[in-house]
Amino acid sequence: MVLTLDLPKPPNPVGAYEAVVIRRGVGMVSGQFPLRDGKLIATGRVGAELSLAEGREAAQVAALNVLAQIQKHTANFESLDGLLRLECYVASADGFYHQPQVLDAASELFVGYLGNKGQHTRTAVSVHQLPLNSPIELVVSFACRPNHWHTAID
Amino acid sequence: MVLTLDLPKPPNPVGAYEAVVIRRGVGMVSGQFPLRDGKLIATGRVGAELSLAEGREAAQVAALNVLAQIQKHTANFESLDGLLRLECYVASADGFYHQPQVLDAASELFVGYLGNKGQHTRTAVSVHQLPLNSPIELVVSFACRPNHWHTAID
Amino acid sequence: MVLTLDLPKPPNPVGAYEAVVIRRGVGMVSGQFPLRDGKLIATGRVGAELSLAEGREAAQVAALNVLAQIQKHTANFESLDGLLRLECYVASADGFYHQPQVLDAASELFVGYLGNKGQHTRTAVSVHQLPLNSPIELVVSFACRPNHWHTAID
Repeated sequence: MVLTLDLPKPPNPVGAYEAVVIRRGVGMVSGQFPLRDGKLIATGRVGAELSLAEGREAAQVAALNVLAQIQKHTANFESLDGLLRLECYVASADGFYHQPQVLDAASELFVGYLGNKGQHTRTAVSVHQLPLNSPIELVVSFACRPNHWHTAID
Repeated sequence: MVLTLDLPKPPNPVGAYEAVVIRRGVGMVSGQFPLRDGKLIATGRVGAELSLAEGREAAQVAALNVLAQIQKHTANFESLDGLLRLECYVASADGFYHQPQVLDAASELFVGYLGNKGQHTRTAVSVHQLPLNSPIELVVSFACRPNHWHTAID
Repeated sequence: MVLTLDLPKPPNPVGAYEAVVIRRGVGMVSGQFPLRDGKLIATGRVGAELSLAEGREAAQVAALNVLAQIQKHTANFESLDGLLRLECYVASADGFYHQPQVLDAASELFVGYLGNKGQHTRTAVSVHQLPLNSPIELVVSFACRPNHWHTAID
C-alpha cells in the first residue's frame, strides 16, 4: 500500500542556486527545510527546544518538500528511477543521540509514498546549528530515466 | 601490491533505510561507523576521549565496513568501477585540526585494498558529535559497471 | 555576459586522496578551501573572527580553486556538462545564520563564469570548526560528457 498525500508547493531557493538540477540521469535536490507556507514550523535544536516527537514532525515536513521538488522535475515522478541518498543534518542538543528515530520519520514517508523507488541510503550528522536556525535539513539525490538525461533546471 | 584482508560481515542499517543503493551505475553506501561485531570500538571525540592513533584505528574499522558493504553489492567487487568520494565526519575536540591524518588511515586502506579502483576524492568535516556518540562516520559513493545499472537494494 | 577570470593553480590534496575523480560521467571535486598561493587567506569562524564580507571573500577564493580543479580535468571545461551540487561548510559563530549570503558569493561566481553549466543545487551546513581552522569548505560534484566516462584521476 502506498501513501497518498497532498504535496505542498515546492519552496523557492533562499539564494543564488537551483532547487533541483538533473544532468545525465543524476538528480540533486537542494537542502530542504521544514517550511510550511514559507515559514519554518519550528526553530532550534532537537533534544533542547524541540522534543523527539517535534523533531520527527519537522523531518516529515522537510521530506514533503523534498517530494514536492522531485515531483515538479520528474513529470510527477514518472521519470524517477528512484532515490539514491538522503543526507540529514540535525541541529542537536549536546548529548542527544537519537537522530535515527527522528530521521526514520522522513525515511518511512519516502518509502510509504514512492514504494521501491523511495528506498534510499542515509547519512545523519548532528550539527550545532543550521541555516535559519532550522532543526533539520534534508538533502536528497536521485536517479532518473534517460529521457531526462539532460539538464533540467528550475 | 594489494592488501589482502578479511572483511567483516557488513553491519545492518540502524533505521528505515538501505545499507547500499545502486541505480544507473551510481552506488551509495550509508554512513558507516567503527563497529566491530555490532559494537562501536570507541565513543567520543578525537583529540579528547580518543587520541589521534585511536582515531586512525576507528577510521580503519569504519573503512573495513565500507568495503564489506561494497563487496556484498558488487559481486565481490567485480562490477565495481571505482570509488568516487569519501565523506568523513569526525567528532573532534575544540582545537583539534588533524582530521587529515586521522582520515588518511581510511584512504590508504581503500587504495591498498582496491588499487586504482580505490582512488577517491575526500571531504572532511569536524562535528561536535555523531549518532551513537561515534568518533567517525564514513560515507562513500562509487561507480559500477552497466550490468549493475539497475536498482540493487539490500 | 560571462565573467573572465584568471584561475589559480589548483591546490594539491592535503592527504592520501585525489583532487578530482571522474567515473562514468560523474565528477567529484575534493573539499576546497580558501587557499591562495598555498595559504589560507583567513582562519576562524564567520560571524566571529571573520565578518560577513570576509566570509564572502573566502567563499570566492575557495570557488576559484573549485573552478581550477574542474578546468584541469575537463579539458578546459570542454567536456563539462555542468555542475550538479555545491556543498558548503561554514565555520560559524554561535547565532550566525547568514550562511546563504556568504555562499551566494560562490554561487554567483560559478554562474557568472560558466553560464548555464554553472547552475547548481546547494546545501549549507554550519559547523563548529573545519580542517586547518578554515572558515569555509566547498565540495562540488559535476556531470561531464561521455568521452570522459572513464576514470580520470589526477
